[in-house]
Amino acid sequence: MTTRWKITIEYDGTPYAGWQRQNNAKTVQGEIERAIKQFSNEDVAIQGCGRTDAGVHAYGQVAHFDLEKEFDAHNVMCAINAHLKDELICVLKAEKVHPEFNARFDAVRRSYQYKILIRESGRSILDKNRVWCLNYDLNVEAMKESAQYLIGTHDFTSFRSAECQSPTPIKSIRSIDFTTFTTPHGDKEIIMFIEARSFLHHQVRNIIGSLKNVGDGKWQPVKIREVLEARDRTLAGINAPAQGLYFDQVIYDPADAAKESA
Amino acid sequence: MTTRWKITIEYDGTPYAGWQRQNNAKTVQGEIERAIKQFSNEDVAIQGCGRTDAGVHAYGQVAHFDLEKEFDAHNVMCAINAHLKDELICVLKAEKVHPEFNARFDAVRRSYQYKILIRESGRSILDKNRVWCLNYDLNVEAMKESAQYLIGTHDFTSFRSAECQSPTPIKSIRSIDFTTFTTPHGDKEIIMFIEARSFLHHQVRNIIGSLKNVGDGKWQPVKIREVLEARDRTLAGINAPAQGLYFDQVIYDPADAAKESA
Repeated sequence: MTTRWKITIEYDGTPYAGWQRQNNAKTVQGEIERAIKQFSNEDVAIQGCGRTDAGVHAYGQVAHFDLEKEFDAHNVMCAINAHLKDELICVLKAEKVHPEFNARFDAVRRSYQYKILIRESGRSILDKNRVWCLNYDLNVEAMKESAQYLIGTHDFTSFRSAECQSPTPIKSIRSIDFTTFTTPHGDKEIIMFIEARSFLHHQVRNIIGSLKNVGDGKWQPVKIREVLEARDRTLAGINAPAQGLYFDQVIYDPADAAKESA
Repeated sequence: MTTRWKITIEYDGTPYAGWQRQNNAKTVQGEIERAIKQFSNEDVAIQGCGRTDAGVHAYGQVAHFDLEKEFDAHNVMCAINAHLKDELICVLKAEKVHPEFNARFDAVRRSYQYKILIRESGRSILDKNRVWCLNYDLNVEAMKESAQYLIGTHDFTSFRSAECQSPTPIKSIRSIDFTTFTTPHGDKEIIMFIEARSFLHHQVRNIIGSLKNVGDGKWQPVKIREVLEARDRTLAGINAPAQGLYFDQVIYDPADAAKESA
C-alpha cells in the first residue's frame, strides 16, 4: 500500500539553481528526488510547499511524496540524508501523513525571514551568503511604519516579478515584524519576519528592497503606499539579494494535522 | 613616524591551518600579512591575541602591527579587506594605538564560545562547520554543575594538549556560562561561554569534551573534579571538534585603552 510522506527540509540555497527541478542545473528538488530514488529504488516526484529561487535558504521547507514500500519514519530521514551527505540539504523530519495531504495546497500560512547585517566594513564572514550586508545604518522604526501599508489584502503588482505565474496579483499579508539586535562586536542585525498564506514571485525580496529605501532615508514611509497603489513594477525598490532570504515555516490546517495516519 | 595599529578580525576557520603563519599552509595570520603588504608595500609581522587551531573561528580576534607610512583608519580597514576579498577573513575595525600596545600580552581577559546543536538527524546545514552537531540530548544542568569545579585557579594538566608550549599548566578560569535555546524547528542549541586571562592549548575543547560526558550521562558531575585533580591527560574527555569553537572577545586593561593615540 502506498504511503504518503511529509518531509521537513533545511538547505543552504547558495550552490543551487533554486528549489525546482531543472534538466541542466542542480536544484534542491532534483537532489532530494535523486536521494529518495537511491535509497528506495522508487521514482518519485516530490511536491514542495514553496519554490524558492537560486540562493534562497530554508529553515523548514516542506514537501510530500509517495512510496510503495513500507519504511520506518526515522529510517526514511536517515536514508535520504545519507544520500545527501555531499549536498547542503538535510531532512529534519520525515512523517507518514494522510494520503490526501498536499504540501503546497494545504498550507494555510507560510513565513519567511530576511536578514540584514549593518557593519562598517560591509563584509560578513561567519554570515557569508546568509545576510544582506550593508555598510550604513537603516532606520528600522521608519521601515516598521511603512510596512503597515502592506498588511492586509492588496494588489501587489508593484512587488511582483515579470516572470510570476500566479493567476492573480492579489495577496493577503498577515504580518510583517522586525527584530533588531546588536552583535557582540557592535554590529546591528535586522531580521524581518513576514507571513502570508502565499506569496507572489519575488514579492518578499521586492518588499525588502523597497523598505530599505525607507530605512536609508531615500523614501518617506508613505511612499510605500504610493508604490503599492500605483500597481507598477518599475516603481518598487530593487529585488533584495537572495542570500538574506529564508523560507522559514509552514503552517497546515490543524484539521489536516488531525487526519495524519499513525 | 611608525604607527602601531590594532585590528579586530572575524574569520571562518574552516579553510585555514589555524591562525599561525606556516610556510606550506594557508593560515589566517599569513593571509592578513600578505594583504597588509599588498596595500602598504611594507613587510609586517602581525602579533595576534590568540593562536586559534585549524577550523576554529573568530568573532573578534585582535592583532597589532606597525606601519611606517601614514594612513587613515577607515582606509586601513578597507584596504586590507580589499586584498582579502577571496578569503574568509574580514577586518571589522582598525585603530591607531599607543606604540607599546601589545595584542597578546596586554589582554587581561579572553572569551570563547562553544556551540552544540542537538538535532535528530545529527546534521546541520545552515550551521555547517559552525557547531558540534549531536543526535542525542545533553543535560545542561548537570554540565553547569560540573563546570563549577573548573572555576578559579587550578593545575589544568588534564585538559592540556601534549603540544602545549605554556611554561605552566596553572590557569585561572573566570567564568563558564551556558545559554540554551530552542530553534524555530524544535532543535536545542547550547552555547557555552568561557572566560579567562589566557588558556592552555586545547583547554577549551578538552573541557567541552569532558562536560559532554557529563551531559550525556556517562559521567557524574563530580567526575570533572576527579579528572582535574588527577592531572592526567588520559582521563579527560575527547578534544571537542574545532568547528564549534569561536574566539569571541578580548578585554584590554582600561588603562591601556586610555593611552590610545588620537
